[in-house]
Amino acid sequence: MREGDKPTVISKQALQRLPYYIRFLRGLKEQGMRIIAAPAVAAQLGLNEVQVRKDLAAMSNSHGKPKAGFIIAELIENMEEALGYNNSDDAVLVGVGSLGRALLGYGGFAECGLNMVAAFDADPALTGGRICGKPVFPMSKLNDICSRMNIHIGVITVPAAAAQAVCDELVKAGVLAIWNFAPTHLTVPPDILVQSENMAASLALLSNHLRQRLREENL
Amino acid sequence: MREGDKPTVISKQALQRLPYYIRFLRGLKEQGMRIIAAPAVAAQLGLNEVQVRKDLAAMSNSHGKPKAGFIIAELIENMEEALGYNNSDDAVLVGVGSLGRALLGYGGFAECGLNMVAAFDADPALTGGRICGKPVFPMSKLNDICSRMNIHIGVITVPAAAAQAVCDELVKAGVLAIWNFAPTHLTVPPDILVQSENMAASLALLSNHLRQRLREENL
Repeated sequence: MREGDKPTVISKQALQRLPYYIRFLRGLKEQGMRIIAAPAVAAQLGLNEVQVRKDLAAMSNSHGKPKAGFIIAELIENMEEALGYNNSDDAVLVGVGSLGRALLGYGGFAECGLNMVAAFDADPALTGGRICGKPVFPMSKLNDICSRMNIHIGVITVPAAAAQAVCDELVKAGVLAIWNFAPTHLTVPPDILVQSENMAASLALLSNHLRQRLREENL
Repeated sequence: MREGDKPTVISKQALQRLPYYIRFLRGLKEQGMRIIAAPAVAAQLGLNEVQVRKDLAAMSNSHGKPKAGFIIAELIENMEEALGYNNSDDAVLVGVGSLGRALLGYGGFAECGLNMVAAFDADPALTGGRICGKPVFPMSKLNDICSRMNIHIGVITVPAAAAQAVCDELVKAGVLAIWNFAPTHLTVPPDILVQSENMAASLALLSNHLRQRLREENL
């Protein structure tokens, strides 16, 4: 973003599409392409053409000359900046069960600007060592470590019953955004963002679709 | 659902709330409660009261007598039936990287009616054994095993570049619903449901919120 510019306000829905655009555009760039038109992006990603044109225009310095197409390198740079891929965010994770371990070991977060620096667990048998290179501390150290390292993102992978207490501790320790994998509703102050990954809800949709389809086939 | 009844049509949003209701209501039942009013549920789960009342009425045999409250056991039973928790769905998983392994080992799916029966991977070094008790087969066996076992749900945990090809193979093998963890858009025939877990998109929201908050604090 050019200095002095008012930051572009991007809708939540548009923000969520950016990682898909970036991935696709990076592929084009690697193939040596320089310019892309909105309809080609829309077709490839299965999105609405008007929406794509609007998204790309918002991420283009020229704000889009309709017939000329968009400059791929410029789109990538602006999208990466909008998502903060360039200045990596440090995060801690609480709960090193199977899902927590998988997230600690997942390489894909680094390229999205998320840097997992430490993990915590309430079970003393799991703390004191390292998982995928990340140190695992007891919960008693959470406040101290988060404050000292200036951590702003907390990832919650504890059971549902423990999630609200963990969330409260993270907020107390200065966390501003919470990524919640526990299947429960979390209550936070108004200036804190909770993004929940709702696996049970996804399963509910899949299972219901299946039952409808199988019912139709049996008719 | 009573026999002969027309199946209740439930919105996608309402379906996604059911797992939260079930978890909360099971807790109340364990504490010996028999009746619950919509406002108490709404307050506890941070949901809109009118919406909760409508959801619970749709899941109640009496369709809700406003002042009397809802019978907890009846709500749980009807919700579990709507979500198919009672007749478990067999699923296969493709891609036994760190996320795939975590999902294979995750105990929480069984209670939601999802039964992971087998996994597949393209890497011969990873196939032939078992992960968390589930056999891991080479991709060449996918069609045969899915057809023979009458599998209707496929879970995709491969890298983005491989996801569409895996999706196509699953659909060819008779899968009707796909749970996609690869960060990419999947194209499927109109009667197949794709439910995507969009981790990069969630991260985009978290990261953007953080940048806004930090900018405000620096003003």
